[in-house]
Amino acid sequence: MANNIPYKTYLTEEEMPKQWYNVRADMKKKPAPLLNPGTHQPMTLDELSVVFCRDLAEQELDDTTPYIDIPDEILSFYKMYRPSPLVRAYCLEKMLDTPAKIYYKFEGNNTSGSHKLNSAIAQAYYAKKQGLKGVTTETGAGQWGTALSMACAYLGLDCKVYMVKVSYEQKPFRREVMRTYGADVTPSPSETTNVGRKILEEHPGTTGSLGCAISEAVEVATSTEGYRYVLGSVLSQVLLHQSIIGLESKAAFDKLGVKPDIIIGCAGGGSNLGGLISPFMGEKLRGEADYRIIAVEPASCPSFTRGKYAYDFCDTGKVCPLAKMYTLGSGFIPSANHAGGLRYHGMSSVLSELYDEKLMEAVSVEQTSVFDAAQKFARIEGILPAPESSHAIKVAIDEALKCKETGEEKTILFGLTGTGYFDMVAYQKFNDGIMTDYIPSDEELAKSFASLPQM
Amino acid sequence: MANNIPYKTYLTEEEMPKQWYNVRADMKKKPAPLLNPGTHQPMTLDELSVVFCRDLAEQELDDTTPYIDIPDEILSFYKMYRPSPLVRAYCLEKMLDTPAKIYYKFEGNNTSGSHKLNSAIAQAYYAKKQGLKGVTTETGAGQWGTALSMACAYLGLDCKVYMVKVSYEQKPFRREVMRTYGADVTPSPSETTNVGRKILEEHPGTTGSLGCAISEAVEVATSTEGYRYVLGSVLSQVLLHQSIIGLESKAAFDKLGVKPDIIIGCAGGGSNLGGLISPFMGEKLRGEADYRIIAVEPASCPSFTRGKYAYDFCDTGKVCPLAKMYTLGSGFIPSANHAGGLRYHGMSSVLSELYDEKLMEAVSVEQTSVFDAAQKFARIEGILPAPESSHAIKVAIDEALKCKETGEEKTILFGLTGTGYFDMVAYQKFNDGIMTDYIPSDEELAKSFASLPQM
Repeated sequence: MANNIPYKTYLTEEEMPKQWYNVRADMKKKPAPLLNPGTHQPMTLDELSVVFCRDLAEQELDDTTPYIDIPDEILSFYKMYRPSPLVRAYCLEKMLDTPAKIYYKFEGNNTSGSHKLNSAIAQAYYAKKQGLKGVTTETGAGQWGTALSMACAYLGLDCKVYMVKVSYEQKPFRREVMRTYGADVTPSPSETTNVGRKILEEHPGTTGSLGCAISEAVEVATSTEGYRYVLGSVLSQVLLHQSIIGLESKAAFDKLGVKPDIIIGCAGGGSNLGGLISPFMGEKLRGEADYRIIAVEPASCPSFTRGKYAYDFCDTGKVCPLAKMYTLGSGFIPSANHAGGLRYHGMSSVLSELYDEKLMEAVSVEQTSVFDAAQKFARIEGILPAPESSHAIKVAIDEALKCKETGEEKTILFGLTGTGYFDMVAYQKFNDGIMTDYIPSDEELAKSFASLPQM
Repeated sequence: MANNIPYKTYLTEEEMPKQWYNVRADMKKKPAPLLNPGTHQPMTLDELSVVFCRDLAEQELDDTTPYIDIPDEILSFYKMYRPSPLVRAYCLEKMLDTPAKIYYKFEGNNTSGSHKLNSAIAQAYYAKKQGLKGVTTETGAGQWGTALSMACAYLGLDCKVYMVKVSYEQKPFRREVMRTYGADVTPSPSETTNVGRKILEEHPGTTGSLGCAISEAVEVATSTEGYRYVLGSVLSQVLLHQSIIGLESKAAFDKLGVKPDIIIGCAGGGSNLGGLISPFMGEKLRGEADYRIIAVEPASCPSFTRGKYAYDFCDTGKVCPLAKMYTLGSGFIPSANHAGGLRYHGMSSVLSELYDEKLMEAVSVEQTSVFDAAQKFARIEGILPAPESSHAIKVAIDEALKCKETGEEKTILFGLTGTGYFDMVAYQKFNDGIMTDYIPSDEELAKSFASLPQM
């Protein structure tokens, strides 16, 4: 293919970003603060430090410092699996016969299979630096738990993972990867915590939820000497760490002399999307450039497109701080036929504020169309994508096909967050033609909105 | 870490090799030719072309041309997942506290999870070029079948895979990846072939073997219009395609100004080892440089270290040409507790000849020590290795520890052929402490040697 743009662009180690970018620093209207669930007052550093280690609590509260140095130890770890490639999707373009130029930032080339490792190593590092013994967390599909297990194995930290029971049973291999990395994995809800026992009593036979696993992990962290809680998405500190995705993408584009027109990412709690768009959004906020930014979410868990922008509980047990976000209510659980991730009831406060100010768009897509896009992509670009990532693929293809109609040569960037090697049960359903779609009714959402706290 | 060598070295697209290297051209004593199983005469081009497509049959017979151009279409495909990184294992070195410098060439960053894709795309390309409708093959652990499915999906070729029944049942996710890429996967032995029916009649309840799956795939290819058979290892054409691994490694070392002292690879049929060592062996054969080269095989399937160098059947059904190789006899089947791949009864004729001339060494290792090395490696270098690759890791660690004793600063290169994401059943056995070792007795081997053909 006669083109000067290589299939893959890698930064050199010298070109890799040495600082994270904190998009909140450039936001005129700051994201709403986390509130103490008892007093409804903003969480203080001391209060947050009970749950998170000190440095991370500071990062969570810091909405003014634009660039934060990445510690050397984290840079060394990043060098083991980063930079990730910025890939030109020549084969996909050819198949679609589109004048659009499609790029994707591929975060799946590491054993966790996703971008989650970018924040896992950061959170584990600060815990180690504080002299802690270990960390606790929850995991749903298992990508975050795997990433954290890897980071903790590397640093010699204990790692206790509460894994949503249905995933624990359906994804024994994910569980086994975490065990190989030395993590202690417990199906949630469990008998090991007060909140777990309470939920089991109220809902015997429940297969668990992310919100419930969060409650258990937080309880263990706050009641065990030398432990803190860590979380793989939603939090502002996570978006800060994940900005490495966008910073590398932007540096690679600058190297190529290319500027994207449209940036597309899947959105569950917002970790990947927030990281991917951060430096581009920064330019937009500073009036230096303009980009069309699109969040893609499942139609079965539509927090941006059908949620309310309100303070809500972050977990089922209601032990966490309250966050203002686009939310479906903490009682919302996606229907049983929902196959992929992106199942959290709320959305990052940072992204929620940017979306509310109309600095980005959001669309929702149904899962059979997502797996159809995933299969097409796999066959022509060679990478078997995670169901989550495939939401972005679906919309990138849609936008490229619009360019085909209009003849516009737009440059599209999307985030390919990970691989689908542990999601073959969902692929099998699609291959067998028995995957179904689901869109919650207005009545169903009204019911879950009723769980929003009275403020 | 104060060092000028980066963690990962990638060639640029311009630096990627444009030709494969055919090590046979530099061998004074050529590998013994394939023989017609009926006449015991060397297979002619016309005879081979019944089984393989014409260009591949020519490559199989060509032991004089040192460099063969890689067609543009294959180069384009290579650019989607290559170059693979040459990685400096800084963290492993630090953990071992060794003065040795350890490098690995990592071939696992593609959806097939291994180096197999390097030859799959080549074989599918030549089939397509000849105007064929499709190809047939066998697969054991599933890496080769996945790679071939990917290549065929990309080129629009039919792909029929005979998968060893025990793997088909135990690795439903591998099977599902192949189906996602549009392949037709049949458990072997099956009722779809004469040889399958015969084997099922003689051994009802058999869980299959590679040799049996080969027989079925060859039968279908030679009896179906527009089909040919392809194979992922053992053949000289496969080693030719896999030379891309060694050529890239050598180019990256040259770029760094480094020369390895010891080169280590796992050996089943020889595809990875042969590819990795080819250009280095070429220098050795031409007297330009010297390297210590070590093949690592499972103690439970020790074709190099305990096999006979003799003509043998390549398959159970005895429909394939005879090959001279280090072999345990085509009747050999590794014991049921053998967890990883590397289970073929024979070894590449090229490598067998080089080993026989003492141009390389071979060692065998037991599987619990292999998984112990795999777990150590995963925890410190971040990559969860395939059981096959972990054989090389084990011996690389052993050699690095010898350097620690002697104080020698040797440079070690090993091939990390792939990832273990679909091997978690084996990892689980290791994690649970119930994995066992097995070394076949002399009596057992004597029995399987009895299946060698009378020449």
